[in-house]
Amino acid sequence: MLTVKHLAILGSTGSIGHSTLDICAQYPDRFVPVTMAAGSNIDVAFEQCKKWKPKVISVATEEGAAKLYEKLAKAHHRETEIVHGAAGAVRVATHPDVDFVVSAIVGVAGLEATYEAVKAGKSIGLANKECLVAAGELITAEARKYGKPLLPIDSEHNAVHQCLRGGRMDEVTSVWLTASGGPFLHTPKSEFDAITVEQALNHPTWKMGRRITIDSATLMNKGFEVIEACRLFNLPAAQIKVIVHPQSTIHSMVEFNDGSILAQLSVTDMRLPILYALTYPDRIESGLKFNVLDLKRLDFHPPDLDKFPCLRLAYEAAESGGSKSIALNAADEVAVAAFLEKQISFKDIARLVEDVMNETSQSHPATIRAVLACDHDAREMSRKWIAKQTMKPVPSVK
Amino acid sequence: MLTVKHLAILGSTGSIGHSTLDICAQYPDRFVPVTMAAGSNIDVAFEQCKKWKPKVISVATEEGAAKLYEKLAKAHHRETEIVHGAAGAVRVATHPDVDFVVSAIVGVAGLEATYEAVKAGKSIGLANKECLVAAGELITAEARKYGKPLLPIDSEHNAVHQCLRGGRMDEVTSVWLTASGGPFLHTPKSEFDAITVEQALNHPTWKMGRRITIDSATLMNKGFEVIEACRLFNLPAAQIKVIVHPQSTIHSMVEFNDGSILAQLSVTDMRLPILYALTYPDRIESGLKFNVLDLKRLDFHPPDLDKFPCLRLAYEAAESGGSKSIALNAADEVAVAAFLEKQISFKDIARLVEDVMNETSQSHPATIRAVLACDHDAREMSRKWIAKQTMKPVPSVK
Repeated sequence: MLTVKHLAILGSTGSIGHSTLDICAQYPDRFVPVTMAAGSNIDVAFEQCKKWKPKVISVATEEGAAKLYEKLAKAHHRETEIVHGAAGAVRVATHPDVDFVVSAIVGVAGLEATYEAVKAGKSIGLANKECLVAAGELITAEARKYGKPLLPIDSEHNAVHQCLRGGRMDEVTSVWLTASGGPFLHTPKSEFDAITVEQALNHPTWKMGRRITIDSATLMNKGFEVIEACRLFNLPAAQIKVIVHPQSTIHSMVEFNDGSILAQLSVTDMRLPILYALTYPDRIESGLKFNVLDLKRLDFHPPDLDKFPCLRLAYEAAESGGSKSIALNAADEVAVAAFLEKQISFKDIARLVEDVMNETSQSHPATIRAVLACDHDAREMSRKWIAKQTMKPVPSVK
Repeated sequence: MLTVKHLAILGSTGSIGHSTLDICAQYPDRFVPVTMAAGSNIDVAFEQCKKWKPKVISVATEEGAAKLYEKLAKAHHRETEIVHGAAGAVRVATHPDVDFVVSAIVGVAGLEATYEAVKAGKSIGLANKECLVAAGELITAEARKYGKPLLPIDSEHNAVHQCLRGGRMDEVTSVWLTASGGPFLHTPKSEFDAITVEQALNHPTWKMGRRITIDSATLMNKGFEVIEACRLFNLPAAQIKVIVHPQSTIHSMVEFNDGSILAQLSVTDMRLPILYALTYPDRIESGLKFNVLDLKRLDFHPPDLDKFPCLRLAYEAAESGGSKSIALNAADEVAVAAFLEKQISFKDIARLVEDVMNETSQSHPATIRAVLACDHDAREMSRKWIAKQTMKPVPSVK
């Protein structure tokens, strides 16, 4: 017997949102989007309303809501209620008709909506990094209360989730996250001063957004994943390990106390982890076949923490938790934006993050509001750091 | 709470037997050997009686039993009852104090004892290939009746068993057995005529007995594993696939319908699958750690069925089942022995097996006795084949 799952898609106009809607189109009798939170791309939000007729859609701003209202009125579309802002996203995530929330709003904007969805007892497919990096302790504690799993929509953590089925949590000795190594895997450290924005945006394996591409180049993204794994699987940072695997075929591994290691492999297509989260504990035919006979060669080597200080900083944040993790994420977001605008150099990203982390006093915010305040402070510190920096001559980047 | 498992070790003087006793020595509060079946190495059987004081030991022959009796009497050891032959092995396997039977007698000698153990409702750790290749249909049907899993003690099937925990059987699309490829992976087919016994005994990865080493060189061993996997996991031959992986680090993989593949990696030490079988569904600390940071490089490529006809023949036997599988195994055992004695050439092994399989009419023996009769007939045909062959000049092998 098939049961239809009614979805809230937080971040419907982003990449995960698109993939989730592709899945809804492929399995119309299994997954129906009933509410959506879009961002500021009103044209895409409009198309999604026309196609999917959600009961509620939330957009980022009041102006966006007005614009969307006007467009829909012209198209004689009256089925969708339009809301906006943080309260709108909460409304979408906690809607009584929703069973399953795909949390894929980028940045801290998704925090409150996801937290409220967890508190409302919804099942969650989690693609929003900040939910675990900045508010992982809060959100996972709440999820444990309701006994609902937070299902990771992220190729690495999804792989870990699959491998963990091979044993009990108290039998796990290590989780091994694989890292493609990014575009600078083979670049000598001495050349890191001259790294350009264009070089950093050229990721070898995944086509992704600009921030996550830079975070992959600094290995900060892998660092975030270390923190996410700690929170998601309730393991200390020392049990989360990283190994560089340029082909990104093995998405992650779990090592058990008997010496067995389970690894998950698949094509690099986000629909796979989304579908896994949506159907867990079942699996369904996806058509996303990986050809084992094409495996050929897989390489592995230890990561270079000296060349990639962001990974070391993330380990520190993972151990400390609370405000240090929040500062790591906030400072990195500001730093990456400044790097993309050529205000600071590639190596400045780690320098800025380290300084802001050191400047942030250790605390463990107990509410989402407190998390957001801590995030705000770290961003302020980061902006000041950049302002000070840009008074100095910026190293010439081609 | 620890519960002690009381073991019958069928094949105590062999390699799996030794590893199982090592585990008993390492975990004396968890695993106690209460009965044993040894073969014809009476000196080792004597030492094992002195050390482990089993309640019953069985040896191959009446003469062996007399010799062992005499040695033990001289050593004032009276705790162990001595039995012999097929009936003795059955006694050992079905002893009322036994919870768990490690089935590791080499060859068809282990068939009846294992079958009776299954019928007596014992849990089974299965390392005897013939139990599944020759009598898989019978033994697995009986095991299903008792609802007890047959736990494979064999790195590949044990790996598959672990990976299968990631989903349901109806979600499995393929099982991928990895093959080291043996010593002739890179030898051109044109040079196969000149392969010597010494070359064939030189296996790159595993140190094993002589027959299994030759079976690895012809890929017949992988073919047996295809049949074993079909019976053990109740899957058609078309769903069991082989991929060559020279490092033998990934022991096997399972592909699910959503496109996810789970793989198991570990050190190549038989204590690991034995311990897994003994402790399933738990895992315990083994000290057999695989260093992920040493992974370096893994290679994969499709097997060459043209160069290794034994693998093709095994697929045919897997599909036909019954007498064809029995013939495959029996003919191969005789052929390998003849090759080791330089009576036939390396390429003759596959020729002999193919001819005997073709000569064997298709049937599905419904008793172990009928299986043994079929096995006997195939061995007779094989000996005749060799006799005919040795009248012709044997190709000169150094």
